[in-house]
Amino acid sequence: MSSDLAARRAAVLGPNVPTFYETPVHLVKGDGVWVWDADGRKYLDCYNNVPHVGHCHPHVVSAIAAQAAQLNTHTRYLHAGIVEYCERLTAKFQTQLDQVIMVCSGSEANDIALRMAQAVTGKTGIIATDNTYHGNTMAVSQLSSRKPPIGGYADHIRRIPAPDTLRPVGGTADDQAAAFARELQTAIDDLEASGHGFSGFLFCPTFANEGLPDLPQNFMKPAEQVVKAAGGLLIADEVQPGFGRGGETWWGHEWLGLSPDVVTLGKPMANGHPVAAVVARRAVMAEFRNAFGYFNTFGGNPVSCAAAAATLDVIEQDNLVDHAKNVGAVFLRELHSMDHPSIASRRGRGLFFALELETDGAADEALAAHVVEYARNHGLLMGRSGRNRNILKLRPPMPFSNENVAMACDILQAAFKA
Amino acid sequence: MSSDLAARRAAVLGPNVPTFYETPVHLVKGDGVWVWDADGRKYLDCYNNVPHVGHCHPHVVSAIAAQAAQLNTHTRYLHAGIVEYCERLTAKFQTQLDQVIMVCSGSEANDIALRMAQAVTGKTGIIATDNTYHGNTMAVSQLSSRKPPIGGYADHIRRIPAPDTLRPVGGTADDQAAAFARELQTAIDDLEASGHGFSGFLFCPTFANEGLPDLPQNFMKPAEQVVKAAGGLLIADEVQPGFGRGGETWWGHEWLGLSPDVVTLGKPMANGHPVAAVVARRAVMAEFRNAFGYFNTFGGNPVSCAAAAATLDVIEQDNLVDHAKNVGAVFLRELHSMDHPSIASRRGRGLFFALELETDGAADEALAAHVVEYARNHGLLMGRSGRNRNILKLRPPMPFSNENVAMACDILQAAFKA
Repeated sequence: MSSDLAARRAAVLGPNVPTFYETPVHLVKGDGVWVWDADGRKYLDCYNNVPHVGHCHPHVVSAIAAQAAQLNTHTRYLHAGIVEYCERLTAKFQTQLDQVIMVCSGSEANDIALRMAQAVTGKTGIIATDNTYHGNTMAVSQLSSRKPPIGGYADHIRRIPAPDTLRPVGGTADDQAAAFARELQTAIDDLEASGHGFSGFLFCPTFANEGLPDLPQNFMKPAEQVVKAAGGLLIADEVQPGFGRGGETWWGHEWLGLSPDVVTLGKPMANGHPVAAVVARRAVMAEFRNAFGYFNTFGGNPVSCAAAAATLDVIEQDNLVDHAKNVGAVFLRELHSMDHPSIASRRGRGLFFALELETDGAADEALAAHVVEYARNHGLLMGRSGRNRNILKLRPPMPFSNENVAMACDILQAAFKA
Repeated sequence: MSSDLAARRAAVLGPNVPTFYETPVHLVKGDGVWVWDADGRKYLDCYNNVPHVGHCHPHVVSAIAAQAAQLNTHTRYLHAGIVEYCERLTAKFQTQLDQVIMVCSGSEANDIALRMAQAVTGKTGIIATDNTYHGNTMAVSQLSSRKPPIGGYADHIRRIPAPDTLRPVGGTADDQAAAFARELQTAIDDLEASGHGFSGFLFCPTFANEGLPDLPQNFMKPAEQVVKAAGGLLIADEVQPGFGRGGETWWGHEWLGLSPDVVTLGKPMANGHPVAAVVARRAVMAEFRNAFGYFNTFGGNPVSCAAAAATLDVIEQDNLVDHAKNVGAVFLRELHSMDHPSIASRRGRGLFFALELETDGAADEALAAHVVEYARNHGLLMGRSGRNRNILKLRPPMPFSNENVAMACDILQAAFKA
């Protein structure tokens, strides 16, 4: 039945629409940190960050159901939902980040962020890292090193080397930070010389797609100074690190001690309901809003706001940020106790981990693929990332427990032994 | 309370985020063709096409609630929802339009359509009309004449005169169609000469934002020939006309007898849930999919598919396409019986109407604004469109009844008398 479904899927969705795993997982049910396939097999979900407070969390589900039955319309009418939610959301940020645009996807959010930078500076040059992904619109796909844009890269994009745990540029922590800032300065100078000018630097504060490198907490401070001195916008893409994923702080940029001009949010924001947002400084928002009559039909509708508010409720009520810190520390300790000669690095913060696999000093993509597949076949869902797809990615829903950690590590250990 | 809410809204959303009407409507509830404000006042909704099968339709609401409680995840796992929905959807199209990408907004859909044209032709030049709007991404905003893009228009865009009922170019119906095709050919030649080349023509089959001009059914046939002869893609933006809005046919391009290469869908597709799609010919989809690794986290998730499928159920079970034709004919007849010297044109198909207001041969924007405000204050929601904002726009949810028509026309008639 699943193979028939796969064939029908390929027929109606077309080519190059991959599923995860050699044998795709045909999911039919989710609950908390668990998902079930069509054969009734249960999997511990150690991959999905979108169902942030757990698959099908009843508080979020009932908020969606109740608001969908009450009213769902757009933001050209007054509605308390968007106002109350955005007030709660901005209260989680530094005071200067106090205005919001609600949209439907992280891609839409980053697409706006690029234009905010252009509206503020009058320039178009954008810098990102050389091993990243920020979304799928035509404009944002220019920043994706792993999915090159149709027609090739435009001339106003510069990419600087992503930080790398195993092969750091520079020696001490301070040297690494300085080296990164120097690369940024070189790219800025190049953009200014090219005539495009420098409008902003867009980055993920955990460099998640880059492979989640271990970074000193002050890593981005020199880079921030370089961006601000050049008059560009510092844009933090919090689609992955946001909403407490890293434990300790609500946002990745907060952990790094940064003051971005624009922050973009997405995936976990409403536990899977299509909601995303741009949070910006008042002056930045004004430049954008006055330069372009932006309206998003679905963005900030009452149901989306109810879903996002309910997700916030659960994060707060269940102390999921602290929880991610505490359980994450246990998880990381267990990962460090795992024994295999090819585990070259074990790292992470909160509930987001990377195990980088190398054999004889070279990236071991085959081993990573094998471990992921073994885990899938033994009831644990996880993924891979990194330039060479040799980094195991573990990023479970936030209510992951110590018991879940033990089970995940047992399967992982068995995968390494097999 | 509503004025306090408006102030809080401005504080957290920033400037230039307008609401409709001089006194904004603070909505709290919707049901069928009705909405209610915070003071308990009831309005007949003659504007909103997004709640296509009626505000808060119980079948759609329960489908969303049930699937949200069961599973909501992305399309990297097998799931029957997207396959079954896309099979049902493509069955509504000509056989060659048989593959789908599901996304979150019409803007995302049109952003993909532009890249499909680029992937197929290897060129970038795009043509649209000179009085339109197709969405809000950086790339798509290049096609919006009414919301100029930040940084100004790029060089690969050409705009041709939108069809106009009161001031048609050419005399007879055939002459108008030929004149439009000639403008298109001139723009194509210009793009080819400029070096950008011609990749496609993106248009709304009812030219809804252009003011919903009365068009002969063969109006676009010469234009279609011109596009195909030049090797470009014909891209039908069905975000407004789609899903039977025009009565008679499911799609606007179908009524015009066209065979587009790409069709984009949005607003009404899931009755307000953030769902949109691109439907394309197999060869076009392959060019796009193989040129770019497109993945949309929220696009085609199980809840979005359940919402879209439930919306399709209601359209089919309640024969809403026929219903739009029948009630629409009554509505148009009533609009024709309306008496005011400034009504220069009354037109429409299905449940989408335009009343163009002119006084002494000039667009009467003030009268249109007055009528809309009067209606709002007397329990009827409607809007305006057109180059000069002098066209009354009536576009109610599809279950609009003959009784609703009578009430709407009574209020409209009173507005014109006042």
